[in-house]
Amino acid sequence: MSLRIQVATEADRDAVWRIMEPIIRAGETFALPRDMDRDAALAHWFQHDRTVFVAEEGGQVAGTCYLRANRPGPGAHVGNAGFMVASEAAGRGLGETLCAHALASAKAAGFRSMQFNFVVASNERAVRLWQRMGFAIAGRLPGAFDHPSLGLVDALVMFRDL
Amino acid sequence: MSLRIQVATEADRDAVWRIMEPIIRAGETFALPRDMDRDAALAHWFQHDRTVFVAEEGGQVAGTCYLRANRPGPGAHVGNAGFMVASEAAGRGLGETLCAHALASAKAAGFRSMQFNFVVASNERAVRLWQRMGFAIAGRLPGAFDHPSLGLVDALVMFRDL
Repeated sequence: MSLRIQVATEADRDAVWRIMEPIIRAGETFALPRDMDRDAALAHWFQHDRTVFVAEEGGQVAGTCYLRANRPGPGAHVGNAGFMVASEAAGRGLGETLCAHALASAKAAGFRSMQFNFVVASNERAVRLWQRMGFAIAGRLPGAFDHPSLGLVDALVMFRDL
Repeated sequence: MSLRIQVATEADRDAVWRIMEPIIRAGETFALPRDMDRDAALAHWFQHDRTVFVAEEGGQVAGTCYLRANRPGPGAHVGNAGFMVASEAAGRGLGETLCAHALASAKAAGFRSMQFNFVVASNERAVRLWQRMGFAIAGRLPGAFDHPSLGLVDALVMFRDL
């Protein structure tokens, strides 16, 4: 299936929300309120400090990611990215493709490294994926995430040079 | 000298900026742009997601801190705080007093733990202070801070239960 990753536009907002909503409602992977509404979620994902990308498979938006500086000023050489993939597109490597795109974009933009601030440790598929993509576990935050079925689980800080 | 810690008001903004400005201009301890202007700095410090406190010594604001949830939703049980002390008040334990106040306030507010996201490793006095206050180094971010004289130095993630 054809895959195209491009900068998101206003016209992609509905598709991005269709990806975000079940992920936010499940509450298992992102530190976002489970009852967050569409406007708040899109305002969060499309904050002005970042570039948002969408991945289209066969003309349908199947995943999204953003890239931004993790901190301003003396921390602005470290990038940060976030990823969401539609459940119906899972298991086909789209997360990996989006991550590779974010890493290449970050390097092209002059970032020296990339940090993920809050990877929920029970999201083992994500942890393994980021490790395959070159990220190391730089920190562990004990019980920092309140999982709806597992209770308090650790969150990981992951980091790699570019 | 009498010490009083209270919630900051509009009337404290000038005093908070007098504390912030030299710290931001020095660029050695906070990931904030060194040329940040007054309005941007105060908007940052007084964001709506937090409570800002000021410590008055002999009627003068000598330090400030904020307390907030580090993340929303399933991460909102972890607190976060930031601290700035006027250079002329340094060395008298005000940082420790402010931190104790933040920890007690966080516990009273129901936070389960406290996380510092970005402690510059070369700021050894701060690292030692937070360790004395019960924080452990939960993560190390290699070269994540661009120090004006030392170049890229590590930043630490520090964490403690409440």
